[in-house]
Amino acid sequence: EIVAAIVELLAGPRPLAGRRVLITAGGTIERLDPVRYITNDSSGKMGFALAESARGLGADVTLVCARTDGPPPPGVRVVSAESAEEMYEAVMSRVPETDFVVKAAAVADYRPARRQSSKMKKGPEQLTLELVRNPDILQAIGDWKQAGAAEGGAGRRTPFVVGFAAETGDTERYALDKLKRKRCDLIVANDVSQAGAGFGTDTNIVSVYGDEGLVAALPLQSKRAAADRIWQLAIERASSPAAPPAGGKGPNA
Amino acid sequence: EIVAAIVELLAGPRPLAGRRVLITAGGTIERLDPVRYITNDSSGKMGFALAESARGLGADVTLVCARTDGPPPPGVRVVSAESAEEMYEAVMSRVPETDFVVKAAAVADYRPARRQSSKMKKGPEQLTLELVRNPDILQAIGDWKQAGAAEGGAGRRTPFVVGFAAETGDTERYALDKLKRKRCDLIVANDVSQAGAGFGTDTNIVSVYGDEGLVAALPLQSKRAAADRIWQLAIERASSPAAPPAGGKGPNA
Repeated sequence: EIVAAIVELLAGPRPLAGRRVLITAGGTIERLDPVRYITNDSSGKMGFALAESARGLGADVTLVCARTDGPPPPGVRVVSAESAEEMYEAVMSRVPETDFVVKAAAVADYRPARRQSSKMKKGPEQLTLELVRNPDILQAIGDWKQAGAAEGGAGRRTPFVVGFAAETGDTERYALDKLKRKRCDLIVANDVSQAGAGFGTDTNIVSVYGDEGLVAALPLQSKRAAADRIWQLAIERASSPAAPPAGGKGPNA
Repeated sequence: EIVAAIVELLAGPRPLAGRRVLITAGGTIERLDPVRYITNDSSGKMGFALAESARGLGADVTLVCARTDGPPPPGVRVVSAESAEEMYEAVMSRVPETDFVVKAAAVADYRPARRQSSKMKKGPEQLTLELVRNPDILQAIGDWKQAGAAEGGAGRRTPFVVGFAAETGDTERYALDKLKRKRCDLIVANDVSQAGAGFGTDTNIVSVYGDEGLVAALPLQSKRAAADRIWQLAIERASSPAAPPAGGKGPNA
Protein backbone atom coordinates (compact mmCIF):
# COMPACT_ATOMS: atom_id res chain seq x y z
CA GLU A 1 0.00 0.00 0.00
CA ILE A 2 2.84 2.38 0.78
CA VAL A 3 4.38 1.81 -2.66
CA ALA A 4 0.99 2.26 -4.34
CA ALA A 5 0.42 5.47 -2.41
CA ILE A 6 3.84 6.78 -3.48
CA VAL A 7 3.14 5.84 -7.09
CA GLU A 8 -0.17 7.66 -6.88
CA LEU A 9 1.49 10.69 -5.32
CA LEU A 10 4.08 10.77 -8.10
CA ALA A 11 1.89 9.74 -10.99
CA GLY A 12 -1.34 11.33 -9.94
CA PRO A 13 -4.61 9.47 -9.38
CA ARG A 14 -5.06 6.37 -11.50
CA PRO A 15 -8.84 5.96 -11.70
CA LEU A 16 -8.50 3.64 -14.72
CA ALA A 17 -6.02 1.27 -13.06
CA GLY A 18 -7.01 -2.29 -13.95
CA ARG A 19 -9.61 -1.11 -16.47
CA ARG A 20 -9.43 -2.28 -20.10
CA VAL A 21 -9.89 0.51 -22.60
CA LEU A 22 -10.39 0.05 -26.35
CA ILE A 23 -9.89 3.12 -28.55
CA THR A 24 -10.21 3.36 -32.32
CA ALA A 25 -8.26 6.00 -34.24
CA GLY A 26 -7.60 7.25 -37.77
CA GLY A 27 -9.49 7.02 -41.04
CA THR A 28 -10.38 3.70 -42.62
CA ILE A 29 -9.22 2.86 -46.15
CA GLU A 30 -11.66 1.28 -48.62
CA ARG A 31 -9.77 -0.06 -51.62
CA LEU A 32 -10.90 0.21 -55.24
CA ASP A 33 -7.89 -1.66 -56.62
CA PRO A 34 -4.31 -2.42 -55.48
CA VAL A 35 -3.31 1.26 -55.46
CA ARG A 36 -6.47 3.39 -55.15
CA TYR A 37 -8.77 3.88 -52.19
CA ILE A 38 -11.42 6.02 -50.55
CA THR A 39 -10.51 7.54 -47.19
CA ASN A 40 -11.10 10.69 -45.14
CA ASP A 41 -9.25 13.52 -43.41
CA SER A 42 -8.96 11.86 -39.99
CA SER A 43 -5.37 12.03 -38.72
CA GLY A 44 -5.80 9.78 -35.67
CA LYS A 45 -4.61 12.58 -33.37
CA MET A 46 -7.76 12.70 -31.22
CA GLY A 47 -7.68 8.91 -30.73
CA PHE A 48 -3.97 9.04 -29.92
CA ALA A 49 -4.61 11.80 -27.34
CA LEU A 50 -7.37 9.73 -25.74
CA ALA A 51 -5.07 6.69 -25.62
CA GLU A 52 -2.23 8.66 -24.05
CA SER A 53 -4.58 10.18 -21.51
CA ALA A 54 -6.10 6.79 -20.59
CA ARG A 55 -2.67 5.24 -20.20
CA GLY A 56 -1.73 8.11 -17.86
CA LEU A 57 -4.84 7.34 -15.79
CA GLY A 58 -3.66 3.75 -15.37
CA ALA A 59 -5.69 1.94 -18.04
CA ASP A 60 -4.67 -1.11 -20.05
CA VAL A 61 -5.12 0.46 -23.51
CA THR A 62 -5.72 -1.23 -26.87
CA LEU A 63 -5.61 1.14 -29.82
CA VAL A 64 -7.23 -0.08 -33.05
CA CYS A 65 -5.61 2.00 -35.79
CA ALA A 66 -6.68 2.65 -39.36
CA ARG A 67 -4.62 5.04 -41.53
CA THR A 68 -3.09 7.74 -39.29
CA ASP A 69 -0.64 10.61 -39.64
CA GLY A 70 2.39 9.59 -37.62
CA PRO A 71 2.95 6.76 -35.17
CA PRO A 72 0.72 5.87 -32.20
CA PRO A 73 1.81 6.86 -28.68
CA PRO A 74 4.05 4.47 -26.73
CA GLY A 75 2.81 2.22 -23.97
CA VAL A 76 -0.37 1.03 -25.64
CA ARG A 77 -1.25 -2.18 -27.49
CA VAL A 78 -1.69 -1.39 -31.19
CA VAL A 79 -3.92 -3.41 -33.53
CA SER A 80 -3.98 -2.44 -37.21
CA ALA A 81 -7.28 -2.42 -39.08
CA GLU A 82 -7.25 -0.83 -42.52
CA SER A 83 -10.89 -1.07 -43.64
CA ALA A 84 -14.21 -0.68 -41.84
CA GLU A 85 -14.75 -4.44 -42.06
CA GLU A 86 -11.36 -5.16 -40.48
CA MET A 87 -12.07 -2.60 -37.77
CA TYR A 88 -15.47 -4.20 -37.11
CA GLU A 89 -13.77 -7.55 -36.52
CA ALA A 90 -11.00 -6.05 -34.37
CA VAL A 91 -13.46 -4.16 -32.17
CA MET A 92 -16.32 -6.66 -31.85
CA SER A 93 -14.00 -9.51 -30.91
CA ARG A 94 -12.68 -7.41 -28.00
CA VAL A 95 -15.83 -5.67 -26.76
CA PRO A 96 -16.86 -8.46 -24.31
CA GLU A 97 -13.65 -7.98 -22.32
CA THR A 98 -13.57 -4.19 -22.41
CA ASP A 99 -14.59 -1.64 -19.76
CA PHE A 100 -14.53 1.47 -21.95
CA VAL A 101 -14.90 1.69 -25.73
CA VAL A 102 -14.01 5.00 -27.37
CA LYS A 103 -14.81 5.15 -31.10
CA ALA A 104 -12.65 8.05 -32.27
CA ALA A 105 -11.88 6.59 -35.72
CA ALA A 106 -13.58 7.98 -38.82
CA VAL A 107 -15.04 4.82 -40.33
CA ALA A 108 -16.21 4.85 -43.94
CA ASP A 109 -19.98 4.40 -44.27
CA TYR A 110 -19.52 2.79 -47.70
CA ARG A 111 -16.96 0.66 -49.53
CA PRO A 112 -16.63 -0.24 -53.22
CA ALA A 113 -18.92 -3.16 -54.07
CA ARG A 114 -16.08 -4.79 -56.01
CA ARG A 115 -12.36 -4.50 -55.47
CA GLN A 116 -10.30 -4.95 -58.64
CA SER A 117 -7.32 -7.28 -58.29
CA SER A 118 -5.12 -5.33 -60.72
CA LYS A 119 -4.78 -1.59 -61.29
CA MET A 120 -7.73 -0.26 -63.26
CA LYS A 121 -6.78 1.24 -66.62
CA LYS A 122 -8.09 4.57 -67.75
CA GLY A 123 -11.29 4.04 -69.68
CA PRO A 124 -14.36 6.03 -70.71
CA GLU A 125 -14.99 9.70 -69.97
CA GLN A 126 -17.45 8.77 -67.24
CA LEU A 127 -17.55 5.91 -64.82
CA THR A 128 -19.97 4.69 -62.20
CA LEU A 129 -18.66 3.27 -58.97
CA GLU A 130 -20.96 0.96 -57.02
CA LEU A 131 -20.71 1.33 -53.26
CA VAL A 132 -22.24 -0.78 -50.49
CA ARG A 133 -22.81 0.05 -46.81
CA ASN A 134 -20.17 -0.94 -44.30
CA PRO A 135 -21.10 -2.55 -40.99
CA ASP A 136 -21.94 0.07 -38.35
CA ILE A 137 -19.60 -0.70 -35.45
CA LEU A 138 -21.11 1.71 -32.93
CA GLN A 139 -24.60 0.40 -33.70
CA ALA A 140 -23.39 -3.18 -33.30
CA ILE A 141 -21.95 -2.40 -29.86
CA GLY A 142 -25.20 -0.69 -28.85
CA ASP A 143 -27.25 -3.65 -30.06
CA TRP A 144 -24.97 -6.09 -28.25
CA LYS A 145 -25.36 -4.15 -24.99
CA GLN A 146 -29.12 -4.04 -25.46
CA ALA A 147 -29.33 -7.78 -26.11
CA GLY A 148 -27.29 -8.42 -22.96
CA ALA A 149 -29.56 -6.19 -20.89
CA ALA A 150 -32.66 -7.98 -22.25
CA GLU A 151 -31.20 -11.30 -21.13
CA GLY A 152 -30.63 -9.90 -17.64
CA GLY A 153 -26.96 -9.21 -18.28
CA ALA A 154 -25.79 -12.18 -16.17
CA GLY A 155 -22.01 -12.51 -16.25
CA ARG A 156 -21.62 -10.02 -19.07
CA ARG A 157 -19.38 -7.03 -18.89
CA THR A 158 -21.10 -4.09 -20.56
CA PRO A 159 -18.61 -1.43 -21.56
CA PHE A 160 -19.15 2.28 -21.19
CA VAL A 161 -19.29 3.53 -24.78
CA VAL A 162 -18.11 6.91 -26.06
CA GLY A 163 -18.99 7.69 -29.68
CA PHE A 164 -17.83 10.55 -31.88
CA ALA A 165 -19.78 12.67 -34.33
CA ALA A 166 -17.88 14.77 -36.85
CA GLU A 167 -20.36 17.03 -38.58
CA THR A 168 -20.42 20.03 -40.86
CA GLY A 169 -23.31 21.94 -39.31
CA ASP A 170 -26.42 20.99 -37.25
CA THR A 171 -24.04 19.22 -34.88
CA GLU A 172 -26.24 18.97 -31.78
CA ARG A 173 -29.20 17.42 -33.58
CA TYR A 174 -27.07 14.77 -35.33
CA ALA A 175 -25.11 14.03 -32.15
CA LEU A 176 -28.20 13.47 -29.97
CA ASP A 177 -29.83 11.37 -32.67
CA LYS A 178 -26.69 9.22 -32.96
CA LEU A 179 -26.45 8.82 -29.17
CA LYS A 180 -30.03 7.53 -28.94
CA ARG A 181 -29.98 5.28 -31.99
CA LYS A 182 -26.64 3.70 -31.14
CA ARG A 183 -27.18 3.63 -27.36
CA CYS A 184 -23.89 5.36 -26.53
CA ASP A 185 -23.21 6.60 -23.03
CA LEU A 186 -21.55 9.76 -24.32
CA ILE A 187 -21.13 11.37 -27.74
CA VAL A 188 -18.27 13.75 -28.45
CA ALA A 189 -19.33 16.03 -31.28
CA ASN A 190 -17.46 18.57 -33.30
CA ASP A 191 -18.11 20.69 -36.32
CA VAL A 192 -15.14 19.84 -38.54
CA SER A 193 -15.77 22.89 -40.70
CA GLN A 194 -14.78 25.17 -37.77
CA ALA A 195 -11.20 26.48 -37.70
CA GLY A 196 -9.16 24.73 -35.00
CA ALA A 197 -11.60 21.84 -34.75
CA GLY A 198 -11.64 18.36 -36.17
CA PHE A 199 -9.42 16.56 -38.62
CA GLY A 200 -5.67 16.98 -38.82
CA THR A 201 -5.35 19.83 -36.33
CA ASP A 202 -3.63 19.58 -32.94
CA THR A 203 -6.54 21.36 -31.29
CA ASN A 204 -10.23 20.67 -31.05
CA ILE A 205 -13.51 22.30 -30.04
CA VAL A 206 -15.96 19.64 -28.90
CA SER A 207 -19.31 19.31 -27.20
CA VAL A 208 -20.02 16.26 -25.09
CA TYR A 209 -23.60 14.95 -25.01
CA GLY A 210 -25.27 12.42 -22.74
CA ASP A 211 -28.83 11.11 -22.43
CA GLU A 212 -29.96 14.37 -20.89
CA GLY A 213 -28.45 16.58 -23.60
CA LEU A 214 -25.35 18.78 -23.48
CA VAL A 215 -22.95 17.66 -20.73
CA ALA A 216 -19.99 19.93 -21.48
CA ALA A 217 -18.95 22.37 -24.19
CA LEU A 218 -15.17 22.36 -24.33
CA PRO A 219 -13.62 25.49 -25.83
CA LEU A 220 -10.63 25.47 -28.22
CA GLN A 221 -7.81 23.51 -26.57
CA SER A 222 -5.20 20.91 -27.41
CA LYS A 223 -6.55 17.48 -28.29
CA ARG A 224 -4.67 16.11 -25.29
CA ALA A 225 -6.38 18.57 -22.89
CA ALA A 226 -9.76 17.76 -24.46
CA ALA A 227 -8.97 14.03 -24.05
CA ASP A 228 -8.30 14.52 -20.33
CA ARG A 229 -11.68 16.27 -19.89
CA ILE A 230 -13.50 13.58 -21.86
CA TRP A 231 -11.98 10.86 -19.66
CA GLN A 232 -12.95 12.82 -16.52
CA LEU A 233 -16.58 12.93 -17.71
CA ALA A 234 -16.59 9.27 -18.77
CA ILE A 235 -15.11 8.07 -15.46
CA GLU A 236 -17.61 10.13 -13.41
CA ARG A 237 -20.56 8.73 -15.33
CA ALA A 238 -19.33 5.15 -15.46
CA SER A 239 -18.92 5.09 -11.68
CA SER A 240 -22.40 6.52 -10.96
CA PRO A 241 -24.65 3.76 -12.34
CA ALA A 242 -27.83 5.78 -11.84
CA ALA A 243 -27.01 8.58 -14.24
CA PRO A 244 -30.08 10.80 -14.56
CA PRO A 245 -32.16 9.48 -17.46
CA ALA A 246 -33.95 12.13 -19.45
CA GLY A 247 -36.83 12.19 -21.87
CA GLY A 248 -37.59 8.46 -22.09
CA LYS A 249 -34.62 6.78 -23.78
CA GLY A 250 -36.38 3.50 -24.48
CA PRO A 251 -35.07 1.22 -27.21
CA ASN A 252 -35.87 2.70 -30.60
CA ALA A 253 -37.18 5.87 -28.93
CA GLU B 1 36.24 30.79 -62.68
CA ILE B 2 38.54 29.75 -59.85
CA VAL B 3 35.67 29.92 -57.35
CA ALA B 4 33.43 27.97 -59.70
CA ALA B 5 36.12 25.34 -60.15
CA ILE B 6 36.53 25.01 -56.38
CA VAL B 7 32.76 24.72 -55.94
CA GLU B 8 32.69 21.99 -58.57
CA LEU B 9 35.58 20.18 -56.92
CA LEU B 10 33.80 20.29 -53.57
CA ALA B 11 30.24 19.74 -54.73
CA GLY B 12 30.89 17.41 -57.64
CA PRO B 13 29.83 18.06 -61.22
CA ARG B 14 26.74 20.22 -61.59
CA PRO B 15 25.36 19.27 -65.01
CA LEU B 16 21.97 20.77 -64.16
CA ALA B 17 23.35 24.17 -63.10
CA GLY B 18 21.09 26.87 -64.49
CA ARG B 19 18.49 24.34 -65.62
CA ARG B 20 14.91 24.59 -64.45
CA VAL B 21 13.44 21.31 -63.29
CA LEU B 22 9.77 20.68 -62.49
CA ILE B 23 8.95 17.53 -60.52
CA THR B 24 5.52 16.31 -59.39
CA ALA B 25 5.21 14.09 -56.33
CA GLY B 26 2.64 12.33 -54.18
CA GLY B 27 -0.91 11.16 -54.73
CA THR B 28 -3.69 13.51 -55.74
CA ILE B 29 -6.82 13.85 -53.59
CA GLU B 30 -10.23 13.91 -55.27
CA ARG B 31 -12.86 15.06 -52.79
CA LEU B 32 -16.35 13.58 -52.44
CA ASP B 33 -17.36 15.97 -49.66
CA PRO B 34 -15.58 18.12 -47.02
CA VAL B 35 -14.07 15.08 -45.25
CA ARG B 36 -13.99 12.15 -47.72
CA TYR B 37 -11.80 11.63 -50.76
CA ILE B 38 -10.34 9.19 -53.26
CA THR B 39 -6.56 8.88 -53.28
CA ASN B 40 -3.83 6.29 -53.83
CA ASP B 41 -0.82 4.72 -52.13
CA SER B 42 1.81 7.14 -53.52
CA SER B 43 3.99 8.46 -50.69
CA GLY B 44 5.88 11.09 -52.70
CA LYS B 45 9.22 9.49 -51.82
CA MET B 46 10.31 8.84 -55.43
CA GLY B 47 9.51 12.44 -56.40
CA PHE B 48 11.31 13.73 -53.31
CA ALA B 49 14.39 11.62 -54.18
CA LEU B 50 14.37 12.99 -57.74
CA ALA B 51 14.10 16.55 -56.42
CA GLU B 52 16.96 16.06 -53.95
CA SER B 53 19.10 14.50 -56.65
CA ALA B 54 18.39 17.31 -59.15
CA ARG B 55 19.18 19.96 -56.53
CA GLY B 56 22.50 18.21 -55.87
CA LEU B 57 23.24 18.37 -59.61
CA GLY B 58 22.74 22.13 -59.54
CA ALA B 59 19.18 22.48 -60.82
CA ASP B 60 16.63 25.11 -59.87
CA VAL B 61 13.92 22.72 -58.66
CA THR B 62 10.17 23.29 -58.37
CA LEU B 63 8.32 20.44 -56.66
CA VAL B 64 4.57 20.27 -57.24
CA CYS B 65 3.23 18.25 -54.30
CA ALA B 66 -0.07 16.48 -53.81
CA ARG B 67 -0.65 14.45 -50.60
CA THR B 68 2.68 13.02 -49.42
CA ASP B 69 4.01 11.13 -46.41
CA GLY B 70 6.33 13.53 -44.64
CA PRO B 71 7.74 16.88 -45.68
CA PRO B 72 9.51 17.66 -48.99
CA PRO B 73 13.31 17.95 -49.05
CA PRO B 74 14.89 21.33 -48.29
CA GLY B 75 16.29 23.64 -50.93
CA VAL B 76 13.51 23.27 -53.47
CA ARG B 77 10.53 25.48 -54.33
CA VAL B 78 7.33 23.74 -53.21
CA VAL B 79 3.94 24.30 -54.85
CA SER B 80 0.92 22.54 -53.34
CA ALA B 81 -1.67 20.98 -55.64
CA GLU B 82 -4.23 18.74 -53.99
CA SER B 83 -6.33 17.49 -56.92
CA ALA B 84 -5.50 16.46 -60.49
CA GLU B 85 -7.09 19.66 -61.77
CA GLU B 86 -4.96 21.80 -59.43
CA MET B 87 -1.87 19.86 -60.48
CA TYR B 88 -2.74 20.36 -64.15
CA GLU B 89 -2.85 24.14 -63.63
CA ALA B 90 0.33 24.18 -61.54
CA VAL B 91 2.27 22.15 -64.13
CA MET B 92 0.95 23.57 -67.42
CA SER B 93 1.48 27.18 -66.32
CA ARG B 94 5.16 26.38 -65.67
CA VAL B 95 6.00 24.03 -68.58
CA PRO B 96 6.98 26.80 -71.03
CA GLU B 97 9.82 27.90 -68.76
CA THR B 98 11.03 24.45 -67.77
CA ASP B 99 13.97 22.40 -69.06
CA PHE B 100 13.05 19.07 -67.48
CA VAL B 101 9.62 17.85 -66.40
CA VAL B 102 9.48 14.71 -64.25
CA LYS B 103 5.96 13.46 -63.56
CA ALA B 104 6.46 11.22 -60.53
CA ALA B 105 3.08 12.00 -58.92
CA ALA B 106 0.29 9.45 -59.02
CA VAL B 107 -2.53 11.50 -60.51
CA ALA B 108 -6.10 10.23 -60.24
CA ASP B 109 -7.59 9.31 -63.63
CA TYR B 110 -11.09 10.13 -62.34
CA ARG B 111 -12.73 12.49 -59.86
CA PRO B 112 -16.27 12.56 -58.44
CA ALA B 113 -18.63 14.28 -60.89
CA ARG B 114 -20.13 16.24 -58.01
CA ARG B 115 -18.52 17.35 -54.77
CA GLN B 116 -20.95 17.70 -51.88
CA SER B 117 -20.56 20.91 -49.86
CA SER B 118 -21.52 19.29 -46.55
CA LYS B 119 -20.71 15.86 -45.15
CA MET B 120 -22.87 13.20 -46.79
CA LYS B 121 -25.13 11.36 -44.35
CA LYS B 122 -25.42 7.61 -44.35
CA GLY B 123 -28.24 6.59 -46.65
CA PRO B 124 -29.33 3.50 -48.55
CA GLU B 125 -27.63 0.10 -48.54
CA GLN B 126 -26.16 0.78 -51.99
CA LEU B 127 -24.95 3.93 -53.63
CA THR B 128 -23.55 4.79 -57.02
CA LEU B 129 -20.82 7.35 -57.37
CA GLU B 130 -20.49 9.14 -60.70
CA LEU B 131 -16.90 9.77 -61.74
CA VAL B 132 -15.52 11.85 -64.61
CA ARG B 133 -12.10 11.75 -66.28
CA ASN B 134 -9.45 14.12 -65.03
CA PRO B 135 -7.26 16.08 -67.45
CA ASP B 136 -4.24 14.02 -68.56
CA ILE B 137 -1.24 16.19 -67.68
CA LEU B 138 1.42 14.07 -69.41
CA GLN B 139 -0.68 13.94 -72.58
CA ALA B 140 -1.18 17.71 -72.46
CA ILE B 141 2.58 18.28 -72.21
CA GLY B 142 3.18 15.89 -75.13
CA ASP B 143 0.54 17.63 -77.24
CA TRP B 144 1.98 21.04 -76.37
CA LYS B 145 5.46 19.90 -77.45
CA GLN B 146 4.02 18.44 -80.66
CA ALA B 147 2.15 21.64 -81.48
CA GLY B 148 5.36 23.64 -80.93
CA ALA B 149 7.34 21.31 -83.21
CA ALA B 150 4.68 21.61 -85.94
CA GLU B 151 5.03 25.40 -85.79
CA GLY B 152 8.78 25.07 -86.18
CA GLY B 153 9.44 25.57 -82.47
CA ALA B 154 10.70 29.13 -82.92
CA GLY B 155 11.52 30.69 -79.57
CA ARG B 156 9.90 27.87 -77.62
CA ARG B 157 11.67 25.95 -74.95
CA THR B 158 10.66 22.30 -75.22
CA PRO B 159 11.33 20.46 -72.01
CA PHE B 160 12.73 16.97 -71.76
CA VAL B 161 9.87 14.94 -70.29
CA VAL B 162 10.17 11.94 -67.98
CA GLY B 163 6.94 10.08 -67.28
CA PHE B 164 6.22 7.33 -64.77
CA ALA B 165 4.18 4.16 -65.16
CA ALA B 166 3.14 2.29 -62.02
CA GLU B 167 1.64 -0.99 -63.11
CA THR B 168 0.56 -4.30 -61.63
CA GLY B 169 1.76 -6.62 -64.38
CA ASP B 170 2.47 -6.31 -68.15
CA THR B 171 4.68 -3.36 -67.26
CA GLU B 172 6.78 -3.12 -70.46
CA ARG B 173 3.82 -3.09 -72.83
CA TYR B 174 1.96 -0.40 -70.87
CA ALA B 175 5.13 1.67 -70.44
CA LEU B 176 6.05 1.71 -74.14
CA ASP B 177 2.46 2.43 -75.13
CA LYS B 178 2.36 5.36 -72.69
CA LEU B 179 5.70 6.70 -73.94
CA LYS B 180 4.48 6.76 -77.53
CA ARG B 181 0.98 8.11 -76.90
CA LYS B 182 2.16 10.85 -74.57
CA ARG B 183 5.40 11.62 -76.44
CA CYS B 184 7.63 11.32 -73.37
CA ASP B 185 11.39 11.24 -73.75
CA LEU B 186 11.73 8.60 -71.05
CA ILE B 187 9.31 6.47 -69.07
CA VAL B 188 10.26 5.07 -65.68
CA ALA B 189 8.17 1.97 -65.07
CA ASN B 190 7.71 -0.22 -62.06
CA ASP B 191 5.51 -3.08 -61.06
CA VAL B 192 4.07 -1.83 -57.78
CA SER B 193 2.96 -5.35 -56.85
CA GLN B 194 6.63 -6.41 -56.50
CA ALA B 195 8.13 -6.42 -52.99
CA GLY B 196 10.55 -3.52 -52.52
CA ALA B 197 9.13 -1.60 -55.49
CA GLY B 198 6.68 1.21 -55.80
CA PHE B 199 4.47 3.03 -53.33
CA GLY B 200 5.48 3.83 -49.77
CA THR B 201 8.77 1.91 -49.75
CA ASP B 202 12.21 3.49 -49.45
CA THR B 203 13.49 1.31 -52.28
CA ASN B 204 12.45 0.78 -55.86
CA ILE B 205 13.00 -1.56 -58.81
CA VAL B 206 12.46 0.34 -62.06
CA SER B 207 12.96 -0.05 -65.77
CA VAL B 208 13.63 2.99 -67.89
CA TYR B 209 12.28 3.04 -71.46
CA GLY B 210 13.02 5.33 -74.38
CA ASP B 211 11.90 5.42 -77.99
CA GLU B 212 14.07 2.44 -78.81
CA GLY B 213 12.78 0.27 -75.95
CA LEU B 214 14.46 -0.67 -72.70
CA VAL B 215 17.23 1.77 -71.78
CA ALA B 216 18.14 0.50 -68.31
CA ALA B 217 16.79 -2.03 -65.84
CA LEU B 218 17.71 -0.80 -62.36
CA PRO B 219 17.83 -3.51 -59.70
CA LEU B 220 16.49 -3.07 -56.15
CA GLN B 221 18.10 0.03 -54.67
CA SER B 222 17.21 3.07 -52.59
CA LYS B 223 14.89 5.55 -54.28
CA ARG B 224 17.66 8.13 -53.97
CA ALA B 225 20.16 5.91 -55.83
CA ALA B 226 17.54 5.16 -58.49
CA ALA B 227 16.90 8.91 -58.80
CA ASP B 228 20.60 9.59 -59.43
CA ARG B 229 20.63 6.96 -62.22
CA ILE B 230 17.44 8.36 -63.79
CA TRP B 231 18.97 11.87 -63.85
CA GLN B 232 22.17 10.51 -65.39
CA LEU B 233 20.12 8.93 -68.21
CA ALA B 234 17.96 12.01 -68.70
CA ILE B 235 20.95 14.37 -68.83
CA GLU B 236 22.80 12.15 -71.35
CA ARG B 237 19.77 12.00 -73.64
CA ALA B 238 18.80 15.64 -73.31
CA SER B 239 22.33 16.72 -74.34
CA SER B 240 22.49 14.42 -77.41
CA PRO B 241 19.71 15.85 -79.57
CA ALA B 242 19.97 13.08 -82.15
CA ALA B 243 18.93 10.23 -79.90
CA PRO B 244 18.52 7.10 -81.99
CA PRO B 245 14.92 6.97 -83.18
CA ALA B 246 13.46 3.51 -83.51
CA GLY B 247 10.47 1.97 -85.19
CA GLY B 248 8.84 5.08 -86.64
CA LYS B 249 7.55 7.12 -83.71
CA GLY B 250 5.40 9.44 -85.80
CA PRO B 251 2.55 11.32 -84.17
CA ASN B 252 -0.31 8.95 -83.38
CA ALA B 253 1.91 6.01 -84.33
